[in-house]
Amino acid sequence: MKRIFQFIFLFCLMANNLSAQEKKAYTLEDVIPGGSNYFNLVPQNMPGLQWWGDRCIQTLKDEILQVNVKNGKKTPLLALSEINHALRACGEDAELLTSLSGASMPWPEKKAVLIQQHSQILTYDAELKKISRIARISEKDAANFDFCKENGFLAYTVGKSLFVAQQGDFHATTSPVCMGNKEDGDRNIVYGQAVHRNEFGISKGTFWSPKGNYLAFYRMDQSMVTDYPQVNTTTRIATLVPDTYPMAGMTSHLVTVGVYDVNSGKTIYLQAGDPTDRYFTNISWSPDEKHVYVIELNRDQNHAQLVSYSATTGEKEKVWYEEKHTRYVEPQHPITFLPWDHSKFIYWSQRDGFHHLYLMDTEATANGEWKKGKDTESQYCELLKTTPLTEGEWLVQDILGFNESKKEIIIGSTEISPLQTNVFSLNVKNGKRTLIGKKDGTHRAKLSASGKFVIDQFTSNSVPREISIFPTSGKTANGPLLFAANDPLVDEYNMPEITLGTIKAADGKTDLYYRLIKPVNFDPNKKYPAIIYVYGGPHAQLIHNNRFYDARGWDLYMAQLGFVMLTVDSRGSDNRGVEFENRTFRQLGVEEMKDQVQGARFLQSLPYVNADKIGVHGWSFGGFMTTNLMLSYPDIFKVGVAGGPVIDWQFYEVMYGERYMDTPQSNPEGYKGSNLREKAGNLKGRLLIIHGGMDPTCVPQHSYTFLRACIEAGSHPDFFIYPEDGHNMIGRDRVHLHQHITRYFLDFLK
Amino acid sequence: MKRIFQFIFLFCLMANNLSAQEKKAYTLEDVIPGGSNYFNLVPQNMPGLQWWGDRCIQTLKDEILQVNVKNGKKTPLLALSEINHALRACGEDAELLTSLSGASMPWPEKKAVLIQQHSQILTYDAELKKISRIARISEKDAANFDFCKENGFLAYTVGKSLFVAQQGDFHATTSPVCMGNKEDGDRNIVYGQAVHRNEFGISKGTFWSPKGNYLAFYRMDQSMVTDYPQVNTTTRIATLVPDTYPMAGMTSHLVTVGVYDVNSGKTIYLQAGDPTDRYFTNISWSPDEKHVYVIELNRDQNHAQLVSYSATTGEKEKVWYEEKHTRYVEPQHPITFLPWDHSKFIYWSQRDGFHHLYLMDTEATANGEWKKGKDTESQYCELLKTTPLTEGEWLVQDILGFNESKKEIIIGSTEISPLQTNVFSLNVKNGKRTLIGKKDGTHRAKLSASGKFVIDQFTSNSVPREISIFPTSGKTANGPLLFAANDPLVDEYNMPEITLGTIKAADGKTDLYYRLIKPVNFDPNKKYPAIIYVYGGPHAQLIHNNRFYDARGWDLYMAQLGFVMLTVDSRGSDNRGVEFENRTFRQLGVEEMKDQVQGARFLQSLPYVNADKIGVHGWSFGGFMTTNLMLSYPDIFKVGVAGGPVIDWQFYEVMYGERYMDTPQSNPEGYKGSNLREKAGNLKGRLLIIHGGMDPTCVPQHSYTFLRACIEAGSHPDFFIYPEDGHNMIGRDRVHLHQHITRYFLDFLK
Repeated sequence: MKRIFQFIFLFCLMANNLSAQEKKAYTLEDVIPGGSNYFNLVPQNMPGLQWWGDRCIQTLKDEILQVNVKNGKKTPLLALSEINHALRACGEDAELLTSLSGASMPWPEKKAVLIQQHSQILTYDAELKKISRIARISEKDAANFDFCKENGFLAYTVGKSLFVAQQGDFHATTSPVCMGNKEDGDRNIVYGQAVHRNEFGISKGTFWSPKGNYLAFYRMDQSMVTDYPQVNTTTRIATLVPDTYPMAGMTSHLVTVGVYDVNSGKTIYLQAGDPTDRYFTNISWSPDEKHVYVIELNRDQNHAQLVSYSATTGEKEKVWYEEKHTRYVEPQHPITFLPWDHSKFIYWSQRDGFHHLYLMDTEATANGEWKKGKDTESQYCELLKTTPLTEGEWLVQDILGFNESKKEIIIGSTEISPLQTNVFSLNVKNGKRTLIGKKDGTHRAKLSASGKFVIDQFTSNSVPREISIFPTSGKTANGPLLFAANDPLVDEYNMPEITLGTIKAADGKTDLYYRLIKPVNFDPNKKYPAIIYVYGGPHAQLIHNNRFYDARGWDLYMAQLGFVMLTVDSRGSDNRGVEFENRTFRQLGVEEMKDQVQGARFLQSLPYVNADKIGVHGWSFGGFMTTNLMLSYPDIFKVGVAGGPVIDWQFYEVMYGERYMDTPQSNPEGYKGSNLREKAGNLKGRLLIIHGGMDPTCVPQHSYTFLRACIEAGSHPDFFIYPEDGHNMIGRDRVHLHQHITRYFLDFLK
Repeated sequence: MKRIFQFIFLFCLMANNLSAQEKKAYTLEDVIPGGSNYFNLVPQNMPGLQWWGDRCIQTLKDEILQVNVKNGKKTPLLALSEINHALRACGEDAELLTSLSGASMPWPEKKAVLIQQHSQILTYDAELKKISRIARISEKDAANFDFCKENGFLAYTVGKSLFVAQQGDFHATTSPVCMGNKEDGDRNIVYGQAVHRNEFGISKGTFWSPKGNYLAFYRMDQSMVTDYPQVNTTTRIATLVPDTYPMAGMTSHLVTVGVYDVNSGKTIYLQAGDPTDRYFTNISWSPDEKHVYVIELNRDQNHAQLVSYSATTGEKEKVWYEEKHTRYVEPQHPITFLPWDHSKFIYWSQRDGFHHLYLMDTEATANGEWKKGKDTESQYCELLKTTPLTEGEWLVQDILGFNESKKEIIIGSTEISPLQTNVFSLNVKNGKRTLIGKKDGTHRAKLSASGKFVIDQFTSNSVPREISIFPTSGKTANGPLLFAANDPLVDEYNMPEITLGTIKAADGKTDLYYRLIKPVNFDPNKKYPAIIYVYGGPHAQLIHNNRFYDARGWDLYMAQLGFVMLTVDSRGSDNRGVEFENRTFRQLGVEEMKDQVQGARFLQSLPYVNADKIGVHGWSFGGFMTTNLMLSYPDIFKVGVAGGPVIDWQFYEVMYGERYMDTPQSNPEGYKGSNLREKAGNLKGRLLIIHGGMDPTCVPQHSYTFLRACIEAGSHPDFFIYPEDGHNMIGRDRVHLHQHITRYFLDFLK
């Protein structure tokens, strides 16, 4: 990993070094999302850019423009008024469109616009200048719209039920197709929505087959799961809002996968056997629509199987691939068939220590032996021929699509730096990767239909935002720069110095990235208080090579108030590979804290930091870390603000919680060791706990039981509740929250 | 009222003026109930003193002593071992007694002991030396035991049901008599328990008739009342604890009164008509057991009627007396028949501006005209001959009983001072009152069976505790002093100076009592911060002539930490008469706050008070006042701690709330004006809100909606929750609470 670290010091040199003259001081309203001036001070964007086949278009409020992929020149393609004219012809019921900014043109060969406004979904045929299809759902709470561009059908949910409609006016009782209870009477059975609490990469509950003849969908029976009694106090008398929440070690929900046949109108279920204590993840279709693929996982989450089922009978057909790990396996991506060869698909695995792609050939069997991966705690069993497509100490993050003509996969990866996502073409035959777009920064790209172009958007610490069109050939000089943003905050406000670096983890060998923010108008002769902003949990990384190295507005604000701000991505965090992440297994907090203490020691070594004034703040897992650090290292951390903290992993949900902690039954020591109530009496400094009153993720029970433990132990945390808020405060509440957090540090750490 | 005020300055002279040498400093553990050393530092008591007829006895753990009423000499009467010996003879099931301290000897003519231990109630016949009656209830949650000494029957509740048993072993399904559901299946109907949320002097739900032939009891149907969703977070997953809570202006419960006939086993209900929006209060019996008397009140609480019903048929017989008030009437005492003349009873009324006693003659009718009371907002209608027994600007607080031979009523009253309760005999014929016991202090007394003696216990600011037996003749010199306590706190600890005085209320005329505590080791040249401890609501009075003029341990503690502590009993508080109390009607907080501001101005006028550092603390109504003062007078009050506050009277219950505020529908301006959410944006100082997590009195919705309002308004109160605690923190939680409150004032007001 040496190359990576050389690179990051280059970033340091590029960090801002602005003079303070005439520049303004920012407020929380300027730098916190939800603040009244926030959106004026973020780098501007060029919204609505997308592909219509290989043609780039931009959807705006009043029109759709075409953007020339060679020179970026814009020409009008279609006006809002034109569609509304056609809509008026549909009769008085039609709801006129107020904006085209949410429109798309998903048919490469057809000049047609798809747009949804409220519960009205329509297609406008720009050749015939008429509305070619319109569906209107009368239920206001219709959600999870999943439109199939192949057949024009729309899947959507109302309440817990799943509906399929094509054209016309629909409401639950007249809708021709419904999975579930039309009257939405049974809250225990949920159809067509994401299951397993959105773990395992699950973000939706409907899956159209490639040609639109079938709809696979999730069905989840929650009748055996305990409700958490959330309370809404905004009603005349407070009301109960029961929320089904399977807690670690307790009975979990049962998931099955149905397949609705659009032509016959029949539904079958995949015959996967007893669903108790199993996860059904990453549903995908074979290109011929005959098979449904599911990655199945045991409750212990240490054994995954790729299984296929007949889409017409639901019969289980074959286990194609298996993977085990002494800690956990975590499938997060469905398989993807090569568009030019339907006998091969891509499988994602971390068996070699990092997320990599493997090409699997359904027509070539393998011997089915169990082998060790390069991650020696991993084992796998291939029942079909498998070829690694990528390898190395970096990871693939995304498959954007394919360039069929060149037999390339277009991917996003951390190959250049674990702090970045860059886009590459990956040649399937020889594994050659070609960088698309600039080497610097964190990129997001949209691939055109043929795979020949990307719309590339990137930000880095030195580039507020650049949007270009590039050919996927890698000849980036050919692509037009569509947009380059200024950073109004940097231009007009007195900014702190933000630097990036590495320190050694507590294991003495692993390099950890840190981001250090010095106070605005820094004086090296002063002694400043310092705050560590921490997360520390899996699936997250707080430092990227993007704007301010990912520093949040609050960190900048505290730097303006005279605090040194540090963040360290400790072991357990994302994008550094399996071993880096799973060292925390069965004992969340222990290793992560040791690394954060390395960060605190680093702060204390700085001549301009007051070593007696180290604070810590974090949310969710970061709230757990903050509380834990305050209780475990009370001589280092003097003031902490912990938001939505996990206090006891037994109150966390089954899927995420058991992956890292196993169950309370099978890992009693681990649960006890990470139960912060056990340490409640250690509190010496000032600790403010903040919770969303209806937090559905870290339920309020975490904080309440911690307060109770502190009361019993005679310690005195402070506490605040944002009534009715969820796991995070958003909008104006977020500004208030950061005022509140700031005041606490000013009260006790300044 | 001049006499009263002369008296209180005398108290001032008597206030403590100890020197600081060699005396200790106290901690919260010393002065807060629940503190580890608290009970060692309160004046000792002489427990278990009571009457067996006219014989004084003292029940101790191991024995019962007889105390000579002439000289106080104690002689053994009966030993615990003797009763246990008899118990063993009852068989192996009998649970031996561990203590006699809860025993009584309620039969004057019989040497017999009644004692309850857990769910075992027994009578020991000391003549025959055997257990003469034993009843054992197997349910652990049996409660509301009401033993009838006339018939030996025991009424008790299990869950929501009422049972009557005599002798033997009982559990719900075998119990011979049950009102309600034996299986306790219907939580909506409650039998035999206090109703109307214990307002109107209601403290129980069963009422034995004088000879024990009938049991009157309350039945309450709550099925139409909304539940407040309380949440218990100590279970594996937090659980809902629904609590039936009728909020102001909402549908209330329906109460009826049943009469169980012990001899026939039948139950009838009083035919009072539709119980909707009516209160049935102060149930009593005629001496001949033929009539049940109820004081009935409309929901608006401005019209009371004394009504009698046939105890055998339930038929309504007669309305005897009615009373109205433009604000509210509040009956709190049942009628009491004269033991020597069963045609006459005593009725309590505030119609003349103060709680006084009226003798009513059932055999002499009156003309039933509506007349104005001396309180001209009051009206009454006498349907029987009525004679005032007491009058004047003081109030009767208690009827202890009668001296039948002298035709005297023994009462407690504020005649000597509104800060005191003294005991008097009141001659029914001529109204002459004779003081029993010393003039100084606040007295509690127990009257012997004949009414010839009292056990008098009193404390005052100069007397930690004195217990004497006095003849009710008033010849106090004749009574033996049984016990005189030291005050260990005063003896061993360095105490602050505590003085009493009066300031003018905001009306410019009414005198208000205050208690002022100077810091320990007071230095007149210093400037001290000051805190007002406030309640301010009806039914409470924070200043009495008792130990430290009622100053709580926390006030003393804060004085030791260098705070000046002030308490003012403002208009609206107790024991000063109707007009003093009900000035707050329909606009709670307004007048009370004006008076508290008078207190703050008084503090600011003191040369040794830092006028910029005035804090305020209070609980419940005092929490309402604290929050209100912080928001309404932000330039005076800089730091406040509000516990279990009312924030919006619409969240308070029907009975107490509507008495003072009417309903939200009929008094929208009043509710809006006293809704502290409306003032959330006014917060300038530091305000800590504290709430019990399951507070059943001021439900947590008060505080949560206030936090929400502050978040919306951009203001920043602080907050703390005592999970699972109720309206007040008790035991160790109370010590923690006061540490928490103290820290807040030290953080922000010191």
